Amino acid sequence: MTDTSKSSTELRPGEAIEEILRFLPKFGSDGLIPAIVTDVKSGNVLMFAHMNEAALGKTIATGFAHFWSRSRGKLWKKGEESGNLLSVREVRTDCDQDVIWLLVDVGGAGVACHTGATSCFYRRLVPTGDASHDMNLEIAALPRHAGCG
Amino acid sequence: MTDTSKSSTELRPGEAIEEILRFLPKFGSDGLIPAIVTDVKSGNVLMFAHMNEAALGKTIATGFAHFWSRSRGKLWKKGEESGNLLSVREVRTDCDQDVIWLLVDVGGAGVACHTGATSCFYRRLVPTGDASHDMNLEIAALPRHAGCG
Repeated sequence: MTDTSKSSTELRPGEAIEEILRFLPKFGSDGLIPAIVTDVKSGNVLMFAHMNEAALGKTIATGFAHFWSRSRGKLWKKGEESGNLLSVREVRTDCDQDVIWLLVDVGGAGVACHTGATSCFYRRLVPTGDASHDMNLEIAALPRHAGCG
Repeated sequence: MTDTSKSSTELRPGEAIEEILRFLPKFGSDGLIPAIVTDVKSGNVLMFAHMNEAALGKTIATGFAHFWSRSRGKLWKKGEESGNLLSVREVRTDCDQDVIWLLVDVGGAGVACHTGATSCFYRRLVPTGDASHDMNLEIAALPRHAGCG
C-alpha cells in the first residue's frame, strides 16, 4: 500500500508552499501556529492566540475556535466559560502557511477579550507630546473601515 | 536624580497591564513581538510579521512599518525594494501588550505580499469533500465586510 497520508502532509519536489492548494499548516518548533481572529462583520482584529495541531483540528471539526493556552498549558475552547464562543465563518492561511486567520462571529455577549472589551485591541498608541518618540496609550473606539460608512 | 527611564518601562506595584495607559510592549524571550498588519480601508489582514525593539521604534519614528526578518536576521523596512511601503495610520496593542496591530495604507502597487498578491492571505480553507475533516485551499477574493456593501 502506498503511504498517502505521509505524502499528503509534505511538500512534494517542485512544489512551492505559496502556490499549492493543499493545506499544509507549518507549526513552529514549539508545535504552535499563530492565529489572528477578526470580526467577520466589522473586520476588526478581536484577538491573537496560538493553536497546536489539536486546537486547529478541533476548530475545523466543530466550527468553534479552539486555541492552545501557553499560560495554562492546555487546549482551550474560547468562550467555554463566558459563553462568548467564536463561530468560525472562514479560515485563511498565508503565503507560507505558517499563520492562520479566523473570521468569526462572537457569540454570547459579543465580547472577545477577557477584560470584557469587544476586542483585546481597545487601546491605541498616541504620542506623549514631548520631543521623544515615546508613546502613551488611550482607550479608543475600534476603527470603522472606510467604505463601511 | 530619579531614574524615570526605568520606572516608566516597568509595571509599577498595583498596576495591571490591561489597564495602564503607558505603552509597555512585552517582547518575547526571543526579543520579538508579533505584529498583525491590516488595511486601514478594507479591514483585511494583509500580513503578519515580527518586530524587535528597533523595528518597533523605527516604525513609530518614521511612520513606515519595519519588522525583524527572522529568516534574514536583520531589520527590514517593508517595501524598501518593491516600493510597496506600508504607511502606518494607527497602532494598537492588546490587553497584555504582547501583540501589535498596525493599520496601514499600502503604497506603490498596493501589494503587501511577496507573491504579488494584495494580501498574504489569498487562500482560504475548503473541505476536501470526503468524510474527513481534511481541508484543501482555494484562492479566494478577500472578504468584504458586512456593512461595507
